[in-house]
This record gives sequence, C-alpha cells and structure tokens, in this order.
Amino acid sequence: MKLLVLNGPNLNRLGKREPEVYGAETLADVENHLQKIASEHLVDISFYQSNTEGALIDKIHECEDNGFDGIIFNPGAYTHTSIAIRDAIASINVPVIEIHISNVHSREPFRHTSLIAPVCIGQLTGFGTGGYELALQAFLLRRKGVRL
Amino acid sequence: MKLLVLNGPNLNRLGKREPEVYGAETLADVENHLQKIASEHLVDISFYQSNTEGALIDKIHECEDNGFDGIIFNPGAYTHTSIAIRDAIASINVPVIEIHISNVHSREPFRHTSLIAPVCIGQLTGFGTGGYELALQAFLLRRKGVRL
Amino acid sequence: MKLLVLNGPNLNRLGKREPEVYGAETLADVENHLQKIASEHLVDISFYQSNTEGALIDKIHECEDNGFDGIIFNPGAYTHTSIAIRDAIASINVPVIEIHISNVHSREPFRHTSLIAPVCIGQLTGFGTGGYELALQAFLLRRKGVRL
Amino acid sequence: MKLLVLNGPNLNRLGKREPEVYGAETLADVENHLQKIASEHLVDISFYQSNTEGALIDKIHECEDNGFDGIIFNPGAYTHTSIAIRDAIASINVPVIEIHISNVHSREPFRHTSLIAPVCIGQLTGFGTGGYELALQAFLLRRKGVRL
Amino acid sequence: MKLLVLNGPNLNRLGKREPEVYGAETLADVENHLQKIASEHLVDISFYQSNTEGALIDKIHECEDNGFDGIIFNPGAYTHTSIAIRDAIASINVPVIEIHISNVHSREPFRHTSLIAPVCIGQLTGFGTGGYELALQAFLLRRKGVRL
Amino acid sequence: MKLLVLNGPNLNRLGKREPEVYGAETLADVENHLQKIASEHLVDISFYQSNTEGALIDKIHECEDNGFDGIIFNPGAYTHTSIAIRDAIASINVPVIEIHISNVHSREPFRHTSLIAPVCIGQLTGFGTGGYELALQAFLLRRKGVRL
Amino acid sequence: MKLLVLNGPNLNRLGKREPEVYGAETLADVENHLQKIASEHLVDISFYQSNTEGALIDKIHECEDNGFDGIIFNPGAYTHTSIAIRDAIASINVPVIEIHISNVHSREPFRHTSLIAPVCIGQLTGFGTGGYELALQAFLLRRKGVRL
Amino acid sequence: MKLLVLNGPNLNRLGKREPEVYGAETLADVENHLQKIASEHLVDISFYQSNTEGALIDKIHECEDNGFDGIIFNPGAYTHTSIAIRDAIASINVPVIEIHISNVHSREPFRHTSLIAPVCIGQLTGFGTGGYELALQAFLLRRKGVRL
Amino acid sequence: MKLLVLNGPNLNRLGKREPEVYGAETLADVENHLQKIASEHLVDISFYQSNTEGALIDKIHECEDNGFDGIIFNPGAYTHTSIAIRDAIASINVPVIEIHISNVHSREPFRHTSLIAPVCIGQLTGFGTGGYELALQAFLLRRKGVRL
Amino acid sequence: MKLLVLNGPNLNRLGKREPEVYGAETLADVENHLQKIASEHLVDISFYQSNTEGALIDKIHECEDNGFDGIIFNPGAYTHTSIAIRDAIASINVPVIEIHISNVHSREPFRHTSLIAPVCIGQLTGFGTGGYELALQAFLLRRKGVRL
Amino acid sequence: MKLLVLNGPNLNRLGKREPEVYGAETLADVENHLQKIASEHLVDISFYQSNTEGALIDKIHECEDNGFDGIIFNPGAYTHTSIAIRDAIASINVPVIEIHISNVHSREPFRHTSLIAPVCIGQLTGFGTGGYELALQAFLLRRKGVRL
Amino acid sequence: MKLLVLNGPNLNRLGKREPEVYGAETLADVENHLQKIASEHLVDISFYQSNTEGALIDKIHECEDNGFDGIIFNPGAYTHTSIAIRDAIASINVPVIEIHISNVHSREPFRHTSLIAPVCIGQLTGFGTGGYELALQAFLLRRKGVRL
Repeated sequence: MKLLVLNGPNLNRLGKREPEVYGAETLADVENHLQKIASEHLVDISFYQSNTEGALIDKIHECEDNGFDGIIFNPGAYTHTSIAIRDAIASINVPVIEIHISNVHSREPFRHTSLIAPVCIGQLTGFGTGGYELALQAFLLRRKGVRL
Repeated sequence: MKLLVLNGPNLNRLGKREPEVYGAETLADVENHLQKIASEHLVDISFYQSNTEGALIDKIHECEDNGFDGIIFNPGAYTHTSIAIRDAIASINVPVIEIHISNVHSREPFRHTSLIAPVCIGQLTGFGTGGYELALQAFLLRRKGVRL
Repeated sequence: MKLLVLNGPNLNRLGKREPEVYGAETLADVENHLQKIASEHLVDISFYQSNTEGALIDKIHECEDNGFDGIIFNPGAYTHTSIAIRDAIASINVPVIEIHISNVHSREPFRHTSLIAPVCIGQLTGFGTGGYELALQAFLLRRKGVRL
Repeated sequence: MKLLVLNGPNLNRLGKREPEVYGAETLADVENHLQKIASEHLVDISFYQSNTEGALIDKIHECEDNGFDGIIFNPGAYTHTSIAIRDAIASINVPVIEIHISNVHSREPFRHTSLIAPVCIGQLTGFGTGGYELALQAFLLRRKGVRL
Repeated sequence: MKLLVLNGPNLNRLGKREPEVYGAETLADVENHLQKIASEHLVDISFYQSNTEGALIDKIHECEDNGFDGIIFNPGAYTHTSIAIRDAIASINVPVIEIHISNVHSREPFRHTSLIAPVCIGQLTGFGTGGYELALQAFLLRRKGVRL
Repeated sequence: MKLLVLNGPNLNRLGKREPEVYGAETLADVENHLQKIASEHLVDISFYQSNTEGALIDKIHECEDNGFDGIIFNPGAYTHTSIAIRDAIASINVPVIEIHISNVHSREPFRHTSLIAPVCIGQLTGFGTGGYELALQAFLLRRKGVRL
Repeated sequence: MKLLVLNGPNLNRLGKREPEVYGAETLADVENHLQKIASEHLVDISFYQSNTEGALIDKIHECEDNGFDGIIFNPGAYTHTSIAIRDAIASINVPVIEIHISNVHSREPFRHTSLIAPVCIGQLTGFGTGGYELALQAFLLRRKGVRL
Repeated sequence: MKLLVLNGPNLNRLGKREPEVYGAETLADVENHLQKIASEHLVDISFYQSNTEGALIDKIHECEDNGFDGIIFNPGAYTHTSIAIRDAIASINVPVIEIHISNVHSREPFRHTSLIAPVCIGQLTGFGTGGYELALQAFLLRRKGVRL
Repeated sequence: MKLLVLNGPNLNRLGKREPEVYGAETLADVENHLQKIASEHLVDISFYQSNTEGALIDKIHECEDNGFDGIIFNPGAYTHTSIAIRDAIASINVPVIEIHISNVHSREPFRHTSLIAPVCIGQLTGFGTGGYELALQAFLLRRKGVRL
Repeated sequence: MKLLVLNGPNLNRLGKREPEVYGAETLADVENHLQKIASEHLVDISFYQSNTEGALIDKIHECEDNGFDGIIFNPGAYTHTSIAIRDAIASINVPVIEIHISNVHSREPFRHTSLIAPVCIGQLTGFGTGGYELALQAFLLRRKGVRL
Repeated sequence: MKLLVLNGPNLNRLGKREPEVYGAETLADVENHLQKIASEHLVDISFYQSNTEGALIDKIHECEDNGFDGIIFNPGAYTHTSIAIRDAIASINVPVIEIHISNVHSREPFRHTSLIAPVCIGQLTGFGTGGYELALQAFLLRRKGVRL
Repeated sequence: MKLLVLNGPNLNRLGKREPEVYGAETLADVENHLQKIASEHLVDISFYQSNTEGALIDKIHECEDNGFDGIIFNPGAYTHTSIAIRDAIASINVPVIEIHISNVHSREPFRHTSLIAPVCIGQLTGFGTGGYELALQAFLLRRKGVRL
C-alpha cells in the first residue's frame, strides 16, 4: 500500500503557528512519527507540503499516474475556498481522507464548511496531530477489507 | 478506561435501513465487534441506543455520575436539530467523539451542519461502521498521552 | 389491507385546542369515524398518538415489522423540525401519507416547510378532519391499482 | 354541484411529458375518467387547460359569474411564480383545491413553495392522476356537510 | 396630451374583488370619472385592461408607435414578478407612472418590491382609486413644465 | 383643513445638494409655492424641517395635540432606518402621506424599503418637488370625500 | 392560586453544569426557595423537570385539566427548536411566563430566538435563579389585578 | 440605592398611543406608582424620557458620573436600531435592565431583535406597565445579594 | 435539418429598444441574415416571436410534434422568471440552445440567473446578434457528429 | 488649510470607556495633541463632538458654508446605522476622511460595514488615537498635491 | 489575428477526468483540432494551461504586452472563486471569451455564478469541446466586423 | 526598523491598469518614492510583488524568520478570497498593515469585505498610492511608542 500525506497552506508553520490551536509538534515531527508507524505496517508513505493551490493540484494528479492507493490530505484554509482542489480530487480514482488538526466546528463560521469533503471518502477533525495516525489506520482497515 | 457507545435515532435499524447508504451490518454486529476489540485493549465498554432525545440526554448525564472516560456518539439526525443534546454534552466533563457512518457532507445540505461537533473533542464522518473502531482507537491514543 | 393512523404532538387536544383552527371534533370522534369507514372497505385500521418524537419513531419502525400496508400520518409540529422522523420513514418500506388538518400554507412561515413530505408518497393539507378520510381513500385507490 | 377542472401550463403534454414523473395517461384519459365518476355522483363537471397565465385568470373570474361551486386546479409551474393567479382566486368566492400530480416536495427547491395554496381551501400533492379524483371526493365530502 | 390608462391582472374585478381592500367602485366607474376630468383639461385619454402579461407588453409597445405622451399604469400583481414588462417600459420613450390602489407597503412582504418602479418616472401607492386622478394631475404638472 | 409639511434630514440642503438628483429649487422655494396653492384652497399650512430624529418625533406628536388634519412628510434617510418615527406616526390619529422627491426605487437597494410607509395612508415617489403639490391635492380629494 | 414551575432539558444539572454561566445553586435549592416564598403568599406551587420534549408537552396539557392558574417555564434549549411545545402552550388557556437564567442575548446567535415567547404572556432573561422569583411576583401582580 | 427610570421614544404618548397594545395608564401614572414603591423600599428614584437618541446617550453617561446604582430602561424603538445606545451602556459600569411593556416577540419580526440586551444584565418583556415594578424588584433582589 | 429561431418578449423591438445595449439591427434584419446562412448549409429554418409566455410554450410543444431538430431560443426576460417555459422544454425531446444578445452577467443581478439554461444543451451570452449565427453553427457541428 | 475633527457618539467617554478597546487617552488629550501638530503645519483646526445624529448633520452642513477644506470624522456607532449622515456628506463638497480608533474588522459583524465610507475619500481603522494624526497627514499630502 | 487558448485548473486531465461529464478527448486532441482550423483561417494560435491562479494571471498580463487580439479562456473552477483573475482581465485591453465544456447551469449551484463573465465579451457553456471552436468562430465574426 | 512592502495580484500592472481607478504611477515609481522616504527615516525597506497566493504566503512566513518589524500589505483581490493568507498572517508575530489604493467601499459589494483585516493591526483604504506612505508613517508612530 502506497500513501501520500499531503499538507496545504501554513502547515509548514506547525509548531511555530498558534501553538494553543495546533500544538507544539513540527511538521517534521509528525512526518517522522507517521513514517515509523507506516513501516511497521509495511506501508510505503511519502510526504508533500505546499502553500500554492496549483502545486497541490499538480501533486494530486500525479498520485493517480504514480499508482498511489490513498491520500491523507490536510487542505488547510483551501478546504473552505478551493473548488479547483475539489475538482482535482474528483478527477482521480485514488481515495482521499480529509483531516484537520483542530476542531474546525468550534472555530469561525467560515471554517465549518468544506468544499472538499463531499469528494473524499471521509473526514476527521479535532484529533490534533493524532488525526494523521487515525487516517492511516483508516486506510489499514480498508486494506483489511472493511467497507469504508 | 470506561467508554460508552451511544447511538441516536434510527440506528437500531442498521442493516435494515437503506443498506446502500449504511451497509448491511446490524447494530448488534457492530457492538459485538467493538466489544471484542475493547476487550483486547482492556477497555470496559457499554452500549446504549434510543430514538428519544430526552433519553439520550439522561444517558449523557449519567456518564459523568458513573465515572465514564469517554463517549463515542452517533447522534443520527439529532446532530442537526438538537441544541438540548449539545447542552447536555457541554454540561459534563466526559470527552465525546461524534461519529457518522455515511459521509454527511455528500448528502442533503441540512446534514452538513452539526450543532453537536463544537462541544465534542472531534468528529469522524464517512468511514462506515469502521468509524466506531477508529473512535475507539482515538481514545486509546488519548490514554497513551497523545494530545487530542 | 392494514393501516395505521398515526398522530403527533398536541393532536390529543383536538376539539379542545384552538377550535377556530382545528374544529370541534375530538381525536376519538375522528378515530371512530375512520374505524367505521375502514370496516366498510374491509380495511384493518389501528390508531396511535404520542407527543414524544422518539415514541413516534419507535411506532414507525414497528409498522414494517408488523406488516402494515400504509401509514396515515399527521406529524403535527414535528413536520417542521424532525429530521429523525424523516429518517425513520425513509428506513422502512411502508408507504406514508402526510396529512394536516389546517391549511398550513396560510399560517406562519415556519409551517410552510415539511421535512417529512419528501419521503412520503403524498401530502394533503387543509381538508379539516376530512383529510384523514381522503387519505384512506387514497390507500383504497392504491389497492385498486391506481399508480400513486 | 358544478365543478371546473382547471389545468395550467404543460399539462396538455400529460402522457407525452416525462412519463417517469407524470405517468402515461393523457389529459384526455384523466378527464374522461373524472367525467365518469362525476356523473355517478350527479356532479356537473367541465374542463379547461391553458398555457397562458392570463387565460387561466380569465377562466377563474368566469367561474364566479357562471355559478360554479368549486375548482380543482393544477396550476403547474405557475404555482411557484404567479401572484396574479393568487389574486384572481382571492377575488372570487368559489372554493379552490390545488392539486399536483407529482410529489413537489421531493423535487427541486423552487417547487416546494406555492404562492397559490394560501388562498385555496386545501392542497393535495403526490397522488399521481389519482389526485384529481381525491379532490373530487373532497368536494363531495363538502357537499355532505363535512367542514373542510 | 394623449394618455393611456393601463390596468393589469384582476383590475377588471374592481368593485367585486375584496372591496375592503380595493373599494366598491368598478373599473368602468373609475374610467368614466377619469374621462370627465381629462376632457376638462383637454387631455385625450384611452383605457386598456388585460390579465395577460404579453398583451400588456404589446400595448406598451404600441403607445410609442401611436404617439402617446404618457401611461398611467397599475400593473397589479405583475408589479412583483414581471421583468418582461419592466423591459417593455425601458424599451419605449413614453413616460410611465406606476399606481397602486391599496397601500402595498402594509400588505404581504412580496408586495413591497416593484420590478417596474425603477423604469417609471414615479410611483403612487395607497390613494385608493383617487390615485389614478393624482397620476393624471402629475402629467398635467409635467405639461406645465414642472420638472418631474 | 390644517396641514403640516414636515421635512427630515438634509432637506434643508435642497437646491445646494446633488442638484442632478434633487433639482435646483431650495426648500424655501418649495414652501412658498405650497403656501400659495394652499391659500387658494383655503388650507392652513405650516412647515417644519429638522435633521434630528427626536425633533421630528416631537413634532409628529404635537400635530395631534394641535388639531392638524394631515401631514405631508418627506422623512429623507430616516425612511429606511427609523422605527421610532414609524411608531410616532402609529401613535397619532392624524393621517400622513409619505413623499420622496427622487425615484427611490432606481437608487441604492437600501433606499427601496420604507419602514414608515406601512403606517401612512399612501406614498408618492419620483415626482420631484411636484410631489409635495400632489400630496396636497391628495388631501384636497380627501376633503371632498374621496375614499383614500 | 396554583402554579407550576416547569423546567426543561439539562436544568436537572443546575449547580453542576457550567457554573460560570448558570451559578452554583442546584435545582432543589431553587425549588425550596420558591416553595418558601409561595407559602408566604398563599400560593400552591408544584415542580416538574424533564429532558424529554414529549413529557413537557404532556405536563403542559395536564395543567389545564388540573386547574392551574399559571406556569413559570424555563424551556432550556427547546426554546429555540420546539414548535411542538409552542403549540402545546397555544392549545391551553393557562398563562405561561418564559424564563431564562442566563442572558441568552449575549450568548450564541441561535439562543437569541424564542419559538415559545410569542405564545407566552411575557419573558424574563438574565436574572439568574432570581428570575423564577420575579416570575412568581409577576403572577402575584396579576392576582392583584395589574393588567399583564 | 439610586435608580433611574429611563424611557425612550414615544413613551411620552403612553395612555394615548395604541391603548390596545400599551394600556391606558399614562407615563406620569407609571412614574407616580414607581415613586411610591421606591419610597417604601428606601430607593432614591428619578425619571427621564426623551425621543432623541443622543439625549438618551447623554443621560446614560451622566448616570455613571452621578453615582447611580442602576437603570431601568425602556429603549422603545431604539432597541432595534441603536448601536450608539448599546455602546453608551457598554461604556459605563452602571447595571441596566431592559424592559418592554408589550410582548415584542408576538409583534413584527423587526421587534424580535434587541441590539441593547447583550450589554444589559437582563431583559423583561410583555408584563405591561407592571414590568417597571418587576425591574425595580430585580434591583431590590440584587441589593439583597442575589446573584443576578 | 429543421430549426426554429424562437424569440421572447421585447425582441420585436430590436433596433428600436436601447440600441446601446442591443445594437441597431432589427429582428427582421437578423432573421434575413440567418435565413441566408441556413440556406447555404441546407438547413430549413423558421422564425417565431411572441411577448406572451403561453404562446411561447405552445410553440415549443409544436416543435416536437412537427419534427424539428433544434430550437435557437432567446427567452428575453422570461429567462429569469418562467418555470413554465423550463418545464415546456423539459417536456420535449428537441434540443434547445439558449442565447442572449447582451452579456447578461455584466447587467443587473436578477439577469445573472437562468431558470431555462439547466434544461438546454448550452447557453451563449454577449455575442450581440452574432450569437444567433454561432448557435446555428453549433447545430451544424452537431450534425457533423461533434458531441455537444 | 482649515480642518474639522468631528467625533460621534460616545467618543466623549474616551479614556473612561472600555480602555482595553479604546486606550487611556481622553478626547481632550487627543485634541490637544492634534492642535499642536496642526499648528506646526499651519493648519487651522477645530473640534466638535456630539452624541446626536442630527447635531452631527448640522455641523457637516456648516462645514461647507464656513469654507472648511476637510473633515476628519469618527462617526462612532452611527457608521453602521446612519444613512442620514451619509447623505449629509454626499450633500457637501468638503472631503471627509473616516477614522476608527479600534480595528472594527476584528469586532462584532455589525461593525464590519460602513454606510459612510462610500462617500468619503478614504477610511483608516485600527491605528488607535494615532489614526487622527495619520488622517491629518493624509490632508497634508493632499495639500502637497498627492492625488488622494 | 493572434489568439491564445488559455485553460485553467484540471483541464490537463481532459479525457482522463470524469469522461461522462467532459468527454473522451484529451487537451492535446482539442489543441490539435483548433490548430488545424486556425491555420485554415490564417489565425496565429497558441496554447497554455496551468493549475496555478497566479500563473494564469501572469499569462493574461503577457497577452497585452505581446499584442494578442483575443483570449479563449476556460477558467475551470477559478470561474467561481477568483476575483484576482477577473481583475487581471479588467487590467488588459485584449478581449476575452469565457468557455465551459459542460453545461455549468445543470450542475451544483456554486457552478452557476461566474466572477469572470462580467469582464469578458461573452460566455459559451455546454457545447462540449466544440465550444472552443465556436469561440474561435466568434473571433472570426469579430474580424469580419460583426459587432460583438 | 525593517519593513516589507508586499503587493498582491495585478499590482504589477499599476499605471497600466484602469488608470481612472488606480492612477498613472507605476509600481516602480511607488517603490522608489517609498525607498526615499524610508531612507530619510533610517528605515530598511524591501519590496515584493507576486500574483500567486502561495508565493505571498511563503514571503509572509519568511518575514518572521528574517526579523522584519512590519509588513505594509496590499493583498489586491486576495483580500476578499484568501483565508490561507489570513492564516499566514495569524501564524507570524510581525505586525501587518493592510492598504488599498482605491476606496474599496465605493466599488462592487464583494470588495467591501476583507478576510485579512481582522488579523492586521489596521487598514487604510482610498488614499491612492499615498496610502503606502501613510502606512509607513503609521509604523514610524509605532516606533515612537504611540499605541497602535
């Protein structure tokens, strides 16, 4: 199983950015931890982060061409504004899980709506950086044949 | 660790109700599977389902009085209409994870808004009945000390 | 043919409640009259009223388990607020006709919208208590093979 | 008792128009069937259909001048856009029953609102072409003195 | 000066229609009274009423071709729904005064908005049938050179 | 007959203020013209202008105490914002005619709604300063017994 | 004088629930205090609390049957969602005063609207648990003949 | 304890204004009655009414400078339109109770929203002129140490 | 190939109506030009214009009965208000192309929405009277087998 | 150059009012500081504050009559509610700069909209009392001929 | 004549992306076909596609600097979200035609609004990939002097 | 003091783009002028412009890493659409001043709302290119210790 962990705008600031909202771990910490768990489960995992909407779209397109089995995607603020990313996900056959570190539903109203969730298989919000690990476990359940 | 799996209206029809949306497993199947996993992790798990808003509120209140460590809650349609359940959760100190079997974001617009999510620690949607297991794993991460 | 006449909140007050809106007949009067007509047409009819949303949902579920052929349902105020009852109707294969005694369209704006009508076969409003009899006639037409 | 069955825009296409929504009967079939039932009940029934809003208004005005006792009216798409027809009905003393063949509440949102229902005695939706017959029965109940 | 008094849907029912709202005078009464006043001021006045939107548009077009100096127009319910009539007025160079017999601002909210007023020189509401006479006086002021 | 011509905020700038919208006449010009016409018809007319909402309310109250038969009122921008002035008019028995010099319906959307019109007998918009004269004529019609 | 103090969802948690919002007194404390004051004024007072919408409706119906003179009602979160409770109050002749412990107007927007207040004689918000006592004093004023 | 009873626009018309809504007592009657009750409880009470928003703001500012312990404030129509009065209340440390004589929630929708309530300690609506006395009792409870 | 060029309200004024918006060509000019091009491509073309909604609906129905292969339709202002025309198009199997002479998207907001476009194969706006020719070319592409 | 610094409602409370929002300087401090800077740049500066909408309008009118070259205007809460002040500014030829001490965009939603800004040359928000000085500098740039 | 065919996000997936919506041709197929037609008409045509909003803006700017006579632009999802692209088009003097392959009006509501169309000369939707050819023909008409 | 002047989409077209809105100076002219003033005040100033949202975010992040004391930011059209840029500003500790050359409040409604202003210290609109200089002066005031 080959997965991409894709992070959108400002997630490169993790650990530095509003730690009371997003926690003290850096993106590198999160990626190292996921790499370790993935290895234990024989999952081939890679990582990409960009602040540019178009670069994220390019990467999503590549996933299908390169035979990925899934994307764990934190679209950051583009969640609420990017129909183009929604269309990119709809244009590929690779399943996507949307995750958010914070509980977006207890923040500003404009963070309550996701343009992207309707084209993903599911969405996870509010589990801190633990959400990435839960998304990985969701793909493992899927490999075991659980309908999801 | 002592957890309650709480199910709201119509979830007693699981397996019988719109199987193309909710799958063929019954609620008993799901509970048996969760019981087994919980046992493996030394978690004391119980189950409750009701179609009555007030009965769900009563049960939520009891959780605090009876020393529960967490609630895995699928509020069904009350997700979108019950401020009373929201207030019940806000009135206790037991953490709650909201789950939905289907991807509510790809269904009717009135299912896109949760009155309950803002007072939960997190929300999981679209992972089928696998979502209950992921919520259990979220509580296990929490027991291991992962901030969430 | 086996039918249930199901009445929601405040319909137990019929005859006592705002007679200028709902007329002077009591619910018992209405039920006796329907019983008589049903007998004439060899229809097995039963009656249930509750003010509790959850109790109405329980009853709707039972209809399928008990082989009912149709429900004549006046959901009262839950018409406008209960997604849970809508989901209960969608979860069974028994056809439902929604009726309202008063013409809800000439009353307050919040009475103009029905969350329940989209999952019923049809809706009747404004025919006074005569609406129950018309709904029964609709089920008789259906028995005769009229597409409806 | 003298009744008019009045049909608005596109109902002349009945049977030819989207049969999966409106069924295979033509308007002539429906009218013949109603004529037969009306005769059995000694009701003098006539029929009119037009695609023009103003022609429908003219006809509504005539009903009062010609001593009609009721109108069974399917306003088609003018239901949702014509305040002029609403005013025409309000300007006469002849009672009107609004009917729709399909269940408008399970179709596009712009079909959920009726500008006309508030000035009718009642509304019937979703009973197929059987709805015309039910409306006739409603007028028969009224003749028998049922408050409606 | 050559004026047209143009009346829209249901105004042929004046006197018969909801007299508590519109008064007891018939349209013929109003027209006779206006004819008399017009004559006194050497104004050539004509009258037209139709319930059909398209017929009103045709008449508006003709006004320019026939050298009219002004239109006193009560568009009835089309005030609130007809962009086509608005466009017809915008397509001619003849000035139009919009009048309403009742005070539309104290009635249903959908009567508070006029699609037509923005392309008229002015609007008069609430003066009963006296409003037609005031509109005629407005055109007389205009003939005297008052900027309006 | 004793009338007050009441002008609200910024109407003291008439003639100086945006002449392309409001014309070149000053408020004094308008008042002199109205005084002359009123005298011809044996009407006792007075004038008041203020930029202060409370002062306009005080004046409206006084009208009843001082036996006025009518108010010709141009509320200026308070038309769209003052519920207090609306309530003042509703609290007296003196009839009020609302006038606007410009055609408010062809200007910014916030000028299309009047909080005051529903409690007036009628409203005149777009007739330039000629509107004051038409309002006076409306009161003369009323004196002659025309229902308005 | 016979009064019912009726409390809706989550008010059984008073003292335990968000004390910074609702204070430290329990519901029993409040009821004991009210009992004492009622006795001093020769008022026969009883108490009921439920988390179930239908149970509250049943109780409201009983009040009329049992000759109550008034209800002091804190509907909790059902204030904002229950048309059924509104209808229950409208269906009886017993006057109801709505009270809220916290100032709902300084909280979330969905708490600013009451579906119930329009059918009550009045509403009191923000006076802490003192609000129940003020509502009792309102009923005493009423007994003394103050119009209210 | 030193209190101000502050009344906003049109309350000087009390007794004369729409008596079916506001009752037959004049403002002087109400003030005399309050003066008497205040004296019995050793409360130093004063009164002020103005129709001008700015004058009410000036008075609110003075309350703090002159050591008042509370304001009983009926803002009349400014309740719904004055952010400036809201800011004035927020700018002082004197507690304010908002009262309305009529039940604003059963009147026009624009009367359902209060810009002022969020900065008051509480709000009372619908108790007729008895509401002023209840507000005084609320301040007496506060003096006795009841948290409110 | 047999095509109808159908024009809605006010298009008979082309050339006379707001030439800065719609250009100086008359409808006859446009039709002559289209006739010439159609002949060159062996297309049998006819023309119809009406200001009446119902007449346009009648014509649309006839197209199917008379074996037309396509309709080039400029619905004018009915674009934004006529659900009845939308239903007429949905009731036939003849493909329709919607055209607008002006760029409706740069005009008033109410011109930005088309009720008709969803049931057409495509829409062309802003190409002046050249749009009719482009629509004809679209039908020619279709005849050549281009998917459209 | 002759400038007026005009302050609206509650700005007389500066220093006393919510210092965490508006700072500790009084209005007199601000005016003294501006007087000093103005003198250094040979600007003739005057000051006016009122809590009354009408008094502010009167002052704005006077500015033109008295030959002012600019107004630095903090309209306080009238920013969001006064169309009358907007019209006053539009009625004069003196340029106005709107300033706000706090960053209105990070406060309540009703503070995000300015009715006044569209008729000013520009707007400054969030620079504390330093904003008045920046507005003065903007007028100095203008005197130097910078287009603004 | 020198034209650019500019394609926005996800159009590089043409042929691979949702073929039931967008057809089976690839972008290269479309470009080759257009190249051929352009050559026949002596049009110098070039092509550019990017998923990045900023890159599309850069390209639009270049068009003016490089003397292009027109842009055929399919902005993909940026149609509905990019004010920046709208501003880029408004900042150049090169005419732009907006095209969409699918009929956006029969898809999700968020696809019904174009931020870009108001600054283009026209818009074409629903003609499949044939739309690019029609846009080219529109530019040819323009070269021939047809006003568009 | 080290400042960045950051310009968003289309500001590279300054001088070429709609000069009646934005003036004739180029961005280079503005930067040269600011460089000169900055030097006079011993401020180290740099400049950056991009049309790409992601590139602007990258630059904002760098500001903190490179020890900048402030950013003068004209976000162009991204002001109204980019939550990602808002989050980037919230993720750094460098203060930002938002500026707009034109008075956005007198343009299209979608330009009236800023997603970015709530996380800036202040906003300046409508001062032409002079606004950049005023923003620089704001930072100078801040260096002098003025609270802002």
